[in-house]
Amino acid sequence: MDWWKNRCRTSPLLWFTDVCLRGISQVMLQNNPLTGALFLAAIVWASYAAGAPRLAIAALVAVIVATLTAQWLRVDQDELEAGLYGYNATLVGLTLATFLAPGLLLWFYVVFGAVVSVIATLATFSILKPWGLPALTFPFVLVAWLMLLATYGFAGLSGTALPSGSVVGTYQPYAGASLDVVGFGIGVLKSISQVFLKADGIAALLLLAGLAVSSLAAAAFAVGGATLAVATAHLLGAESDLITGGLLGFSPVLTAITLGTVFYRPSPRVAVYAALGTVFTVVAQAAMNVALTPLAIPALTAPFVLVSWMFLLPRQCLDEVASKGAGQ
Amino acid sequence: MDWWKNRCRTSPLLWFTDVCLRGISQVMLQNNPLTGALFLAAIVWASYAAGAPRLAIAALVAVIVATLTAQWLRVDQDELEAGLYGYNATLVGLTLATFLAPGLLLWFYVVFGAVVSVIATLATFSILKPWGLPALTFPFVLVAWLMLLATYGFAGLSGTALPSGSVVGTYQPYAGASLDVVGFGIGVLKSISQVFLKADGIAALLLLAGLAVSSLAAAAFAVGGATLAVATAHLLGAESDLITGGLLGFSPVLTAITLGTVFYRPSPRVAVYAALGTVFTVVAQAAMNVALTPLAIPALTAPFVLVSWMFLLPRQCLDEVASKGAGQ
Amino acid sequence: MDWWKNRCRTSPLLWFTDVCLRGISQVMLQNNPLTGALFLAAIVWASYAAGAPRLAIAALVAVIVATLTAQWLRVDQDELEAGLYGYNATLVGLTLATFLAPGLLLWFYVVFGAVVSVIATLATFSILKPWGLPALTFPFVLVAWLMLLATYGFAGLSGTALPSGSVVGTYQPYAGASLDVVGFGIGVLKSISQVFLKADGIAALLLLAGLAVSSLAAAAFAVGGATLAVATAHLLGAESDLITGGLLGFSPVLTAITLGTVFYRPSPRVAVYAALGTVFTVVAQAAMNVALTPLAIPALTAPFVLVSWMFLLPRQCLDEVASKGAGQ
Repeated sequence: MDWWKNRCRTSPLLWFTDVCLRGISQVMLQNNPLTGALFLAAIVWASYAAGAPRLAIAALVAVIVATLTAQWLRVDQDELEAGLYGYNATLVGLTLATFLAPGLLLWFYVVFGAVVSVIATLATFSILKPWGLPALTFPFVLVAWLMLLATYGFAGLSGTALPSGSVVGTYQPYAGASLDVVGFGIGVLKSISQVFLKADGIAALLLLAGLAVSSLAAAAFAVGGATLAVATAHLLGAESDLITGGLLGFSPVLTAITLGTVFYRPSPRVAVYAALGTVFTVVAQAAMNVALTPLAIPALTAPFVLVSWMFLLPRQCLDEVASKGAGQ
Repeated sequence: MDWWKNRCRTSPLLWFTDVCLRGISQVMLQNNPLTGALFLAAIVWASYAAGAPRLAIAALVAVIVATLTAQWLRVDQDELEAGLYGYNATLVGLTLATFLAPGLLLWFYVVFGAVVSVIATLATFSILKPWGLPALTFPFVLVAWLMLLATYGFAGLSGTALPSGSVVGTYQPYAGASLDVVGFGIGVLKSISQVFLKADGIAALLLLAGLAVSSLAAAAFAVGGATLAVATAHLLGAESDLITGGLLGFSPVLTAITLGTVFYRPSPRVAVYAALGTVFTVVAQAAMNVALTPLAIPALTAPFVLVSWMFLLPRQCLDEVASKGAGQ
Repeated sequence: MDWWKNRCRTSPLLWFTDVCLRGISQVMLQNNPLTGALFLAAIVWASYAAGAPRLAIAALVAVIVATLTAQWLRVDQDELEAGLYGYNATLVGLTLATFLAPGLLLWFYVVFGAVVSVIATLATFSILKPWGLPALTFPFVLVAWLMLLATYGFAGLSGTALPSGSVVGTYQPYAGASLDVVGFGIGVLKSISQVFLKADGIAALLLLAGLAVSSLAAAAFAVGGATLAVATAHLLGAESDLITGGLLGFSPVLTAITLGTVFYRPSPRVAVYAALGTVFTVVAQAAMNVALTPLAIPALTAPFVLVSWMFLLPRQCLDEVASKGAGQ
């Protein structure tokens, strides 16, 4: 790693690449260029496997545009080099390309969304300063929600994968189906890959490899969080397709990593606390899926942000305030 | 009272009972074990009268679990002994048991909701610290909304008393019916008992007795607030069933107590201010009932929280900053 | 102006008039009685032209009631004399009279809304103090939303111009129509007049005259913001009627004035930043129009408030913190 740092110091292009890769790694709260490279490999693989290489291109374009914007706005150099202005843009780019139809305006939208995500990140840092809370993926959720909602008012941009809106009351509870071991395993893997909006087992393994390179604890909590989320969702009777598709697990995975390894020092007491937060994230995910039904937009990682903030605010009670690397 | 305090100091079980009772009394912003006992009597009476003793059991289980959780989280001892970690759980337990069908998962849900309500309370205290605002019932509203919404996504938990969702535009204004003196009186009483989600006149009298034991001013403002709310709702043409069922009055009752007696020192000027807040809470209650129509969940005491915070923030203007007992 | 100030000092009536006129001028972030008089002329003209003189009366009643309320609440004298307690009431009065049917209860509602708008303004000032953010029109949006939503629950108040509610998913994208030069010009003018909820070209010219009297830069940014908003909305394929009616432009006009002239010192870099904010306000306006569809209420200036706060929070990054006159 020292060799890489020295190379980055001498080459502006390598430095820029390093910042972008760290930005991608911050999607799962890591600050590590190798992790970012493995995450990028997961995105590229899953995009090609799904026959939509434009998803990977959108993620790349967004993180590059965001890094340039951050430089134009003269943000804090340490925060920039930790990748803190890249991860929200990465997710904005992926999300817009995933839910909207391809076309020239989509690319304008991706670039514009990446620029705005940096301003949203700065605004979120400023808002949260009194409580010392991390921004997490709030800037991404805010910008992506507004931009997806707006497409219903613009003929130039149309949603191809957005849910269709309906009133909550018309909802009919279904009988919870049984879940076999294979389905359980698929649900766990896809819960991890859905952090990057993918339902792909190989991508999940690449993501886990990326996490392990940076922090074995983070990889362990990701797997543990996904397992707990799938078990909870099944126990409460959630729809099997949602569970095996990983759609109730990606927010809990991020909560488990955040509470278990980044902002608290790992310990048995913290593990119980992180497990509580992980289970409550499953409830919050189901709740937000319902709440957004009339608006016809996805919940994205809003449940993770809400529950993690809620479980990080009583920090002094756990006597274990951490100031670990990610710095988010 | 000194005798009781000494007994509590010597017996851990009595101490625990005292904390739980004070927790129940804090639902109406009091800090008094006798008030809590009278409130508990009101809950037990109304639950049996409605043929659903599980409601009272859920409230009791919730406040006990919350007190244990607060101890595990090593919260501030003074706050714990003032009952500040019990009232939100009491309301979460009552609400889940009121709106959801009975069953094993309901009891898991009640226990889990009580645990999370303590974390939500700690988080709310932390968020509000810069403004010196009380948490009021915000932690309850947040946790209950998420848990009720989530049931639409879980086959294991089903709502039996949740409203059915509909779009706002299909709403047809009705002709406001006339309201006689008996209906008016029933509306006032049930506005008070609905603070504990009950439509029961005897429960209302027990609650008033509980308030009077702790603070005569609080009891007076509760009656005054309920009267003003029923009159306002009728004048504006609200549906008679909502008025006589107390469903437009429970939030205003809490606003009247909060603004009139707990956080401002009673005075003619404060009384006018509290009356303005009480009337605006009726408007906010109607507004939130409408806003939540597409989501098929009840507004709970959210209008009380919103309006009370709004009317507490300009405290310096009233020249009468109080730091009275309840401490919430 | 010195002559006017001296006259105001000697006559309580003139002083009160001055405060009210400055309150009206603050709707577009100016602090100037002549600007207020020209804005009032625009309101009066457009109300008579639309055959609804009650709109102008409601605005006047509201700003007078709010100024009296602010005195009763003993607000800060400098803030009062800068008109900071009048602009939200002006907009509340206009909005209630625009969307609700005339009648005795409407006038009660206008007076009550004006009183509450002052408390909401004080509360917003207090909430925003940690970040040094201006209140903008947030108090207006909060009070007006609650009061409009509540009318669906009150037979005594009925909406005559409120949108009808529908679920988002039933929405059909339309083909973006072509926009000729005349339509473009009309869209720009009405974007400016819609700040006061009017679709009236002459009112727009009076408003521009009022801005120019106080700040030529503000007038220039208003025209520039409106032009950019109309162009953006057309490019993205928004409905032509919305564009030419000014309904996608009034929030961006306020964002352009706010970011370009009031809180940042004008410069090329700030102009680019303000342009980004203006374009994003168009997106946010379309998004909120969609998000509020199930609730059947208008977005009002909420998109302006949200985007301006977001773009004002990273102030230190632009190195150009302004502390200009308006002081909002």
